[in-house]
This record gives sequence, structure tokens and C-alpha cells, in this order.
Amino acid sequence: MSEIRYQYDVVVVGAGHAGTEAALAAARLGAKTALLTTNLDTVAQMSCNPAIGGIAKGQIVREIDAMGGVMGQAIDATGIQFRLLNRRKGPAMHSPRAQADKKAYQWWVKLAVEDQPNLDLRQEIVSDLLTEEVDGKKRITGVSVHGGVVFAASRVVLTTGTFLSAIMHVGETKTPGGRGGEGTSSGISSALHRLGFRLDRFKTGTPARLNYNSIDFSQTELQPGDDEPQPFSFLTEKLPGEQMPCHITHTNEKVHDLIRANLHRAPMYSGEIESRGPRYCPSIEDKVVRFTDKDRHQLFLEPEGYNTREVYVNGISTSLPRDVQDAMFKLIPGLENAQIMRYGYAVEYDYCPPDQLWPSLQTKEVTGLYFAGQINGTTGYEEAGAQGLMAGINAALEGRGEEPLVLGREQAYIGVLIDDLVTCGVDEPYRMFTSRAEHRLMLRQDNADRRLTPLAQQRGLLTPQRWQTFSAKAQQIDAALATLTSTRHQGTLLSDLVRRPDSEWEQICELAPSLKTISAEAALQVTYDLRYEGYVARQQVEVERQKRLSHKRIPESFDFTRLTQMRHEAREKLVRVRPTSVAQAERISGITPADIALLLVYLDGRMAPKSS
Amino acid sequence: MSEIRYQYDVVVVGAGHAGTEAALAAARLGAKTALLTTNLDTVAQMSCNPAIGGIAKGQIVREIDAMGGVMGQAIDATGIQFRLLNRRKGPAMHSPRAQADKKAYQWWVKLAVEDQPNLDLRQEIVSDLLTEEVDGKKRITGVSVHGGVVFAASRVVLTTGTFLSAIMHVGETKTPGGRGGEGTSSGISSALHRLGFRLDRFKTGTPARLNYNSIDFSQTELQPGDDEPQPFSFLTEKLPGEQMPCHITHTNEKVHDLIRANLHRAPMYSGEIESRGPRYCPSIEDKVVRFTDKDRHQLFLEPEGYNTREVYVNGISTSLPRDVQDAMFKLIPGLENAQIMRYGYAVEYDYCPPDQLWPSLQTKEVTGLYFAGQINGTTGYEEAGAQGLMAGINAALEGRGEEPLVLGREQAYIGVLIDDLVTCGVDEPYRMFTSRAEHRLMLRQDNADRRLTPLAQQRGLLTPQRWQTFSAKAQQIDAALATLTSTRHQGTLLSDLVRRPDSEWEQICELAPSLKTISAEAALQVTYDLRYEGYVARQQVEVERQKRLSHKRIPESFDFTRLTQMRHEAREKLVRVRPTSVAQAERISGITPADIALLLVYLDGRMAPKSS
Ligand SMILES: Cc1cc2nc3c(=O)[nH]c(=O)nc-3n(C[C@H](O)[C@H](O)[C@H](O)COP(=O)(O)OP(=O)(O)OC[C@H]3O[C@@H](n4cnc5c(N)ncnc54)[C@H](O)[C@@H]3O)c2cc1C
Ligand SMILES: Cc1cc2nc3c(=O)[nH]c(=O)nc-3n(C[C@H](O)[C@H](O)[C@H](O)COP(=O)(O)OP(=O)(O)OC[C@H]3O[C@@H](n4cnc5c(N)ncnc54)[C@H](O)[C@@H]3O)c2cc1C
Repeated sequence: MSEIRYQYDVVVVGAGHAGTEAALAAARLGAKTALLTTNLDTVAQMSCNPAIGGIAKGQIVREIDAMGGVMGQAIDATGIQFRLLNRRKGPAMHSPRAQADKKAYQWWVKLAVEDQPNLDLRQEIVSDLLTEEVDGKKRITGVSVHGGVVFAASRVVLTTGTFLSAIMHVGETKTPGGRGGEGTSSGISSALHRLGFRLDRFKTGTPARLNYNSIDFSQTELQPGDDEPQPFSFLTEKLPGEQMPCHITHTNEKVHDLIRANLHRAPMYSGEIESRGPRYCPSIEDKVVRFTDKDRHQLFLEPEGYNTREVYVNGISTSLPRDVQDAMFKLIPGLENAQIMRYGYAVEYDYCPPDQLWPSLQTKEVTGLYFAGQINGTTGYEEAGAQGLMAGINAALEGRGEEPLVLGREQAYIGVLIDDLVTCGVDEPYRMFTSRAEHRLMLRQDNADRRLTPLAQQRGLLTPQRWQTFSAKAQQIDAALATLTSTRHQGTLLSDLVRRPDSEWEQICELAPSLKTISAEAALQVTYDLRYEGYVARQQVEVERQKRLSHKRIPESFDFTRLTQMRHEAREKLVRVRPTSVAQAERISGITPADIALLLVYLDGRMAPKSS
Repeated sequence: MSEIRYQYDVVVVGAGHAGTEAALAAARLGAKTALLTTNLDTVAQMSCNPAIGGIAKGQIVREIDAMGGVMGQAIDATGIQFRLLNRRKGPAMHSPRAQADKKAYQWWVKLAVEDQPNLDLRQEIVSDLLTEEVDGKKRITGVSVHGGVVFAASRVVLTTGTFLSAIMHVGETKTPGGRGGEGTSSGISSALHRLGFRLDRFKTGTPARLNYNSIDFSQTELQPGDDEPQPFSFLTEKLPGEQMPCHITHTNEKVHDLIRANLHRAPMYSGEIESRGPRYCPSIEDKVVRFTDKDRHQLFLEPEGYNTREVYVNGISTSLPRDVQDAMFKLIPGLENAQIMRYGYAVEYDYCPPDQLWPSLQTKEVTGLYFAGQINGTTGYEEAGAQGLMAGINAALEGRGEEPLVLGREQAYIGVLIDDLVTCGVDEPYRMFTSRAEHRLMLRQDNADRRLTPLAQQRGLLTPQRWQTFSAKAQQIDAALATLTSTRHQGTLLSDLVRRPDSEWEQICELAPSLKTISAEAALQVTYDLRYEGYVARQQVEVERQKRLSHKRIPESFDFTRLTQMRHEAREKLVRVRPTSVAQAERISGITPADIALLLVYLDGRMAPKSS
């Protein structure tokens, strides 16, 4: 058998959410790139809920888009319902979210990949990682695929998601595989072991899918999309699709009793699964156990697309046995006669603790090898896409001999994400929250392009069209700010008028008609710039102060349980470890700079611990 | 673990082309039906070429449609190029064919299944068949699925396609699985063995898929669709999609030399695969070996859909190793730089020789168990769909205590197909040809509704809409025939004018204006009825004569090699066996009544064996 070798600059393994962004980014930067994946029919498949965005995640998608990634355009082209979450809160909390036509999303991304110059998408099962020793240091030389063929490359990005040595659980039943109906990859796990990586195991779960026609919607509450839906991409002018509604129903005490009575059959509780799952996407059995005071939990009935009757039941992810799943739905209003098309299940898989990575997402152990996505212990399509984008960019830049692109915590949620991962590691599946970002007032969804598009342009990541769109907007903003800060009305600078919370842009335009020509997006930026200037500056000062204060001692008497404003996860850790200094608290895995900022506020007595 | 049982009237295993038609038909007849399939994302997936119809196969699709099946409507809704093949030949040879948007086709069929009342589509892996003994005879009681759950039913239809104990081959590399990127089912093979079924092995193959953008179309020949594309379904009034062109290129001597030099690495020739493949979809290595006189073979470049760049290369199915596949394309005009997205491969799988079936497609061994599709040793989506339809109908009818619906050889290609299978068995993958149907002048694509829709209506298979459409057309035909056979022009009956090959319907209408109101389809039927009456009657007589003649002796000196008008396959068999009587020839497996009809023509000296 003659050896077959294909030579590439960058090889990306796995065409999920991380892999597609990685491969597209590397190819956009001119690297000859191969994207190898088990099955071309599952490119960019949504393993779990058919939705993109959400709190803090929507911001990430805007950032990916601002840097030339595809996730934003894909969801704009294939979304079936768009909502801006937290609309009533300040702009830093605004988070876009959309339901996707799941299959259309997948084919849209696949087509983008197929159309990308420098990029070869191939159906291949990667079975091993190839390395050589250079000066006592391992360096990647490529991968081998099933059939003994070699894809040689000095940069390889691994984005294998939940597929490494994966086992699915439904009650007592176990099936090898990383996603319902699919297989697992064990070769890569062994290769990683051999190369000296630490692997650990996480689990995640998904709910059942029901047939739309079998649901009694009269017993549910309608949840329509926004009247004026906002696109994700800075390039999208108009969303093409019609909006489809979701519906809401609830569990109840009978459901909870049933679950309690069957907890011993849930693999999480029977001891079958020992690894941790995502605290913030808990299974219904977790919710029933952890939130004993809640007598009901909300369930969203989300259609999976225009041309399918499959409905995703958001909020009831489970690995309980089938008979319990059957019985559960019979007790839920509207779902009494629901026909289950696919059962919920949990999956346990290997991940690689991400403290083994440099901030470029290159591994410390093997030069030229990058990890991105769920393999790094994260959860979520958006977190995966963001890492994929950065790993792809850095793999290509390294190939050109350029410095890696590492975003700061003050520049992007993506910066926060990667810094949290590589600095603190993870001890449960990591998802993004606004509370993880100490600079969150600055890291808004509306200004992602202003934060990141120029950086991306410098590295050559953008199409001319994107740069033009951005530059035109930036010019409008600059011109408007110049006008506002130099024009007075009855002695008051127009910029000060804009700062007033009740001022309306239309009225200001009457006072300086040249402003009328600028776009709504540019006007919004100008308004936010002026209105939130003060807050942002204060946040900045606080962040600096915090850096200086990290050696502050924590009194032994300090009661961590009373940090009620802190994320549950972080508080639990502090309670467990009881750190005696801020510096020690910082070193606890999973405690982020944002948590520390909040801890300092309490320590200073600026916020009183709530008495229990 | 408590036992979970779901009770159905009919359980269908496998949602391929056979399984979807089977489940839909059973449910339409009111049987409570479950359709269980490994992965809901592969419902009605086209394993090989993205096309429906073709010679004799197009006729079958029209027949499926005439009986209320979905294949015709599915392809009408999702086709990207429609052609009526053999347009220049007589109407019995007209065969509709269309390229499909492969993924759209799949989702269309899945949606039809999801929307069908009485039908539950579920993602389940069937692992065993359950039976009981009643009066010394086995009878099916249901199936069990992975996870130990039972779907109880007294009728089960098995339509597992190429997935039973399947192994894929690419050169020297073997992978368990029934289709690229998917797994295999071994449980069912064992169950069939245990129940006393004979199993045998066949193989089939598929070519590589290329990226459209990497093909140089300037070196290829354009193949557009028809200017006035004709729908498959008798219900479709207008095809929705725009037509997309295909392109044609050719292999050449260099390619053939390369293949010859590597034949020892093709699993078919190295002895790795011993089972037979479809003679009429030969792999490129087969073609090179068998047709040594041909210095080139035609290749069709068929796009797989509107929203994908995958291109199917029709004509170059292969299991040669990857390096040979790579090298092969480099030598073909237009494909020199083609990027391979998926490699060609062959698959070997278990099938159940179909002489173990009754004409209802129920197995002789196990009461209530039906087989349909590739499991019966056939090949092709259309053959599978047709068997699925009949098995689904018969499973439901049996449940009602009614007689099975068995179509005659003179009623439908479907009748020919099933009669050939259960009477002669198969010794290579069976595909339909017009030459297999001795009544082919009657079994036209244009009159499939007139042959079958009334039968389907009697059994309650049709929607009111379909029956109305049909009845309206039938009334028009009757009225027109009455007018034509009672009206004279210058002494000649109008019906005799219509019989003249050069007569035009518009001119006839001028002579009897009431004819102007009838539809083009009805007018065509009237024309064909009158014009081909004589031929059809003569064919009828011939078929009767043949039945009487089957005891005729064949002289020892008869040279079978000279039956040049006979199908290659049939001729080869006769040459091998050298039967001494027509009756003996009839008993040879794979020799069909149509072959016998032709043999009789030669024996009678009505056609002279060509001298070599
Ligand atoms: C059951 C389940 C439930 C989930 N629930 C949630 C949830 O509630 N909330 C949430 O935010 N996220 C959830 N997720 C996670 C979400 O699916 C992932 O975060 C996201 O898909 C990760 O993207 P990725 O690109 O890292 O990996 P994936 O999307 O998993 O893609 C990995 C790709 O790699 C390919 N691959 C694997 N091995 C090989 C190999 N050896 N050779 C070639 N290709 C290979 C796979 O075929 C796949 O295409 C869930 C996932 C699963 C499976
Ligand atoms: C590689 C390849 C090449 C081919 N080449 C040609 C060709 O050149 N020309 C041609 O005419 N035809 C070709 N075919 C055949 C064509 O695909 C089949 O004729 C057609 O798909 C058969 O339809 P079916 O419904 O019988 O089976 P399939 O379409 O194979 O469907 C079988 C279904 O059963 C499901 N299933 C299997 N086992 C189980 C289980 N245990 N539990 C639940 N579900 C199960 C599978 O997931 C699948 O959905 C080829 C097929 C393959 C795989």
C-alpha cells in the first residue's frame, strides 16, 4: 500500500461550529486549508437547541461577525425568530438571540465553506495525530485518517466537540457516540494521551424532540419574535425570513414527583455518570433536585425550522429512561398527547483542560497544535465558534511568522472567554455570562464592530465590502461627534443635550441638520458614547484599582455565603475554599476577574452582605 | 428495568425509500403505524445518485404516484432538472427522469411522514425481531430496539436497505457501515439467521463527489433539462423550481490504463469482495474490464442541489484506492483540478433472497413479516419505493382481514418487479428494465393512473383530491372516445383520422369542437389508445401464445450467443446453462417472462440469430 500524503498549511479536524469558523478564517488569511470531518451531512449541525445567541452569547456572535466570521450571517439568512433579550435593561445587557431553521443553517454554513477559496472540505475520519521532536520539543506534522492517508501540515486545529470517547446515556442504556445516531472518535483521545495531554470528562444533555402536530397549543402561551427584528451581522440589511412563534408551557409538582421517584434511574444520580455537566443548562432532574423551592419550570417549545415538524423542548434536557420521559410529557399541559420523535439523552465525553493552552489557543505541549471549541471544556455554539475563529486566525498567522492575535479582556467577550479558559481552566462546562466580563459596559453587542473590525482589518481578515461598510459608519460617527461637541443650542453643547436620558435624536437633528444624513446605527453609537462615557470611565478605574488590590487579605470571619450578588458557581467555590487573600481567590479555578471585582466591592463594605 | 412496550398495528423498520412509502401507505389505510429509523436526519436519503426515474424506473415512479405514494410529488417539489428520456421513441419507451436537490428531497419526504395521521416517526435502532409460535408456524409479534424497548405489532415491514452487516471498501481499507459516514446493523442479520432465513451478500458502489468550483466546465458539454419539463405526479400542475444544467465529460485511454494497472488493488478484483454487484451500474473498473473495445466512457456531472457545491460524477462508481481515484480525475478533461469532497466506495451487505417471499411481500417463513427494498436484492430508489408501497399496503390490508393487493405483470411494472423477485429470485442486484416487461406497450408512464388509480381507490388508498383529478380526466377520455368513434369527416371516422401518425389533435378538434374542452393529458391518452390499440392487441396475443409454448424443446445446436437482442445478463445465463426446453429456460433464476418471449421469437425463426 503506497503512502498517500496531502500537503496543507493548516488542517482543521471536525466541521462543527468551531471547525467551520477556524477553517474559514485560516483560508481567508491565505493558508491552504483542509477541513476534515466525519460526515459532510453534519457540517455545522446544532447538536442541541436550534438557536444562536442569547445573553452574553449574542454579544459573542456580534464579535465573531465583526471579525469576518460567518455565524452572524448564517443565522440572519436562516433564522425563524429574532429577539433582542434584556431590551428594557441598559445597552450592555442587550443580547440578540434567534431561533434557527436548523437544517437550513447547516447547509448555509456548508455552502460558505464550499465556496471559500483555499479551503478543501473533505469527509474523513481522523484517527491519529502525527508529531516529530525538534530540539526536545514535540511539533505537529499532520494527522492520519481512516484508510492510512496522511494530511501533512505544520498547523493542526482540533475541534472535535463532544465526540472524543463519547458515551450516550438514556436511563440505564448506554450507546457509544457523540450525538444521537452518530459515532465516536477514540483514536484522537489515545493520541492526546500518548502526547502527554491531561484529559478529563464532562457531560451534557439534550431534551426530547416532539412532533408539532401532536401538541395542543391552546394550553400554551404564545411567544412571538420582535416586531422589528434586528439582524446579527453588521452586513445584513434585511432579514429574509418570516417570523415563527415559539410557545411556553411549564412543568408542575406532579412532574417533579415523578422525577424524584425515578431519580435512582437517572445516570447522573445512579452513579453511572460521574463527570460534571453545565450548571447553567441543568437537566430537569438537576433542576428538581437543586431548586426544591420552585413548583414549576418554564419550557419553551421551539420549532426546528420552516419545513419540519420537529419541536425542541427547551428546559427539559434529561437522561431519564424512556418510560419516565413518556410519563413526564403526559403530565405537562399541552404535551399530554405529544409524540416523541427523539428521546432526550446525556453524553459523556473527553475534554482537554484548557490550562494546557497558550492564549493563542496553541497547546503548550505540542507546537503547531491548536484546540478550539467543546474540546476545551466549553459549551455552546457561540463559545465554540469564537474559539474556532481565533485558533484558525492564529494557526494561519503563525504560518506567516506573525504574532498571534490575542484579544484583551477589555476588548471583547472573546478575550474574556479565552483568558478565563487558559488562565483559570475549567471544572465544569464553561459558558459565557455578562458577569464574567469586568469591562462589560464597554463590551456591548452594538459596538462589536468598533471594537474589533479595525483589528481584523489589520490582519487581513476582512472582505473589502465589510471594511467599506464599517469605514462609512465610523466616518459618520466621527463627523457627528465633531458636530455635537462644537455646536451649542441656547448655550448648551449639543453633546450635553444628547447625554440627557430623555433626549431624542430627531430633536437634536433639528438643531444641527447635518446630523440627519447619518444612519440609525451610527446615531445609536454616538448617543451611547456620550451617555455611557462616565460609567465606562468609572468601570475602567475600578478595574485598575482591583488589579492593585489583589494582595488584600480576607478576614477569617468573612461569610462568603452572603455574597448574594455573585454567580452561584463562584460563590459555591469561595465557600468551599475559603481563601484568605484576594490573590488566593484569584487562583481558584473557575473564579474570574469579574468575580474578584465583585468580591472587592463586598470587602470594601461598599455592598453589604445580605443577612440570611 | 421495567419493560417498555409500545403497541402498533404496523411497524416499519428503516426510513429509506422503501420504508417511507411503506409507512405512509399503511397509515393512509388507517393502520396505527410506527416508522423506526436509525437517524431522523437520514430519512429518504439518496445513498448514491441524486436523481429519480430513468428508463423503466420513471414508469415505476408514475405507478407509485398513481397509487397515492409520495415519490412523484417529492421529486416534483424538489427537482432541479427534468428530462423525458427516449422522447424520440414510441410512448412505451418514454421515461421521465429528474435530478433532485438531494437534501430538499429528503426534508420534503420527512415532512410528509411527519404530517401523516396515524404515523409515528421515531429515531430508534432496531436490534431484534420478536416472534411466537402458533400451530407450529412462526408469527411476528414486534421488534425490540436498542435500550430494550419493544414495539409490539402483528405486522412488521423490514426495509433496512444496504445496512445489514455492511462493510464499505475503498481500495484496501474496510469500514463497517452501510453508507459513507454511517454505521451498520448486525442485530437484524442475526435475527434473520435465527428465524431460518437464507441470507446472501451483494455489493454496490458509488462514485466520488467533487466541488463544483474546482471543475473546468469549459472542457465539458452542456446538458440542459427539457424546455417544457414534465412533472412526475399526476397531481402536479406546475414544477416550482428553476432548471439547472448537468455537464458531460469522458474517460479516456489514459484513465483506462491507470485503472488496469491498479486492478489488483480494487477489492472486486483482489478477491476482497466476492459478492455480486449490479451489472447495469458497473463500477468504472468493471467497465474497463468488460468493455475492452470502448476507448471512453461518458461521465455526467450532476449538481446535488441548488445550495450545495457537491457534484455527483455519474458513471465512475469505484472502490479503487484513493490515490487511484485522485490520479484518475487528474486525467479527465475538466476534472484535472477537481477537489474530491467524498471518495467513491463499494459496500457489501446482506440481502434476503426474495424467493422466500409471497407475492404480497410477506415472508413465507414468518407470518406477518414483510420485506421491501434493497433487502430483497434489488437496487434503486424506485424499485425500493414500489416494494415499500406494496408491502405497506399489504401489511395494513392483512390487519383488516382483507386479501393482499398483488399487481399482475400486465398491470404494472411493479407487478413485473415483484413477480420476477418472488418467482425467479435474484442472483445479482435486480433493477428494472423495459425489456423485463412482456406487456411493456401497455405499461406506459402516461397511462399509469388509468392502470392503477381505480385499484388504489378501491382499497381506500387515495385522497379525495387524487380521485377527483383522476375521475375528471377519465370522463374526458370516455367522452372524447365516444365522439371520435361516432363522428365522421368526409366519410372517415374521426377515430381513424387520429390513428394516422401524422394527424394533429388541433385539426381533429376543428372537426369536432366539443373536443376542445378536454385537457392535453386526456387528449394524449385518447390518441395513444387509438394509435397503439393494434400493437397492444398483438402483444397480448403473443404473450398468450408464449404461455402455451413453454414446453417447446430447444435444439441442442441452438447457439445462444447469437441472441443479440436479448439482455446481456439473460443471454449469459442461457449460454451457461444451455437449457433444452423453454420450460427449463423459464426456471433459470433471473430469466424473466420477457426473456422467454424473446427466446420464442428466435426459436420460431421470426428473428434470425445474428451470425458472428
Ligand atoms: C447532547 C448534547 C447536548 C448539548 N447541550 C447543550 C446545551 O444545552 N447548551 C449548550 O450551550 N450547548 C450544548 N451542547 C454543546 C454544543 O453542541 C457544542 O457546544 C457545540 O456544538 C460545540 O461545537 P464544536 O465545534 O466544538 O463541536 P461539535 O459541534 O460537536 O463538532 C465537532 C465536529 O467534529 C467532528 N469530528 C469528531 N471527531 C472527528 C474525527 N475523528 N475526525 C473528523 N471529524 C471529527 C464531528 O463529526 C463534528 O462535526 C450539547 C451538545 C450535545 C452533543
Ligand atoms: C454506496 C451505495 C451505492 C449505491 N449505488 C446505487 C446505484 O448505482 N444505482 C442504484 O440504483 N442504486 C444504488 N444504491 C442503492 C440505493 O441506495 C438503494 O436502492 C435504495 O436506497 C434502497 O432503498 P431502501 O429503502 O431499501 O434502503 P435505504 O435507502 O438504504 O434505507 C434503509 C434505511 O434503514 C435504516 N436502518 C437500517 N438498519 C436499521 C435498524 N437496525 N434500525 C432502524 N433503522 C435501520 C437506515 O438508517 C436507512 O434509513 C446504492 C446504495 C449505496 C449505499
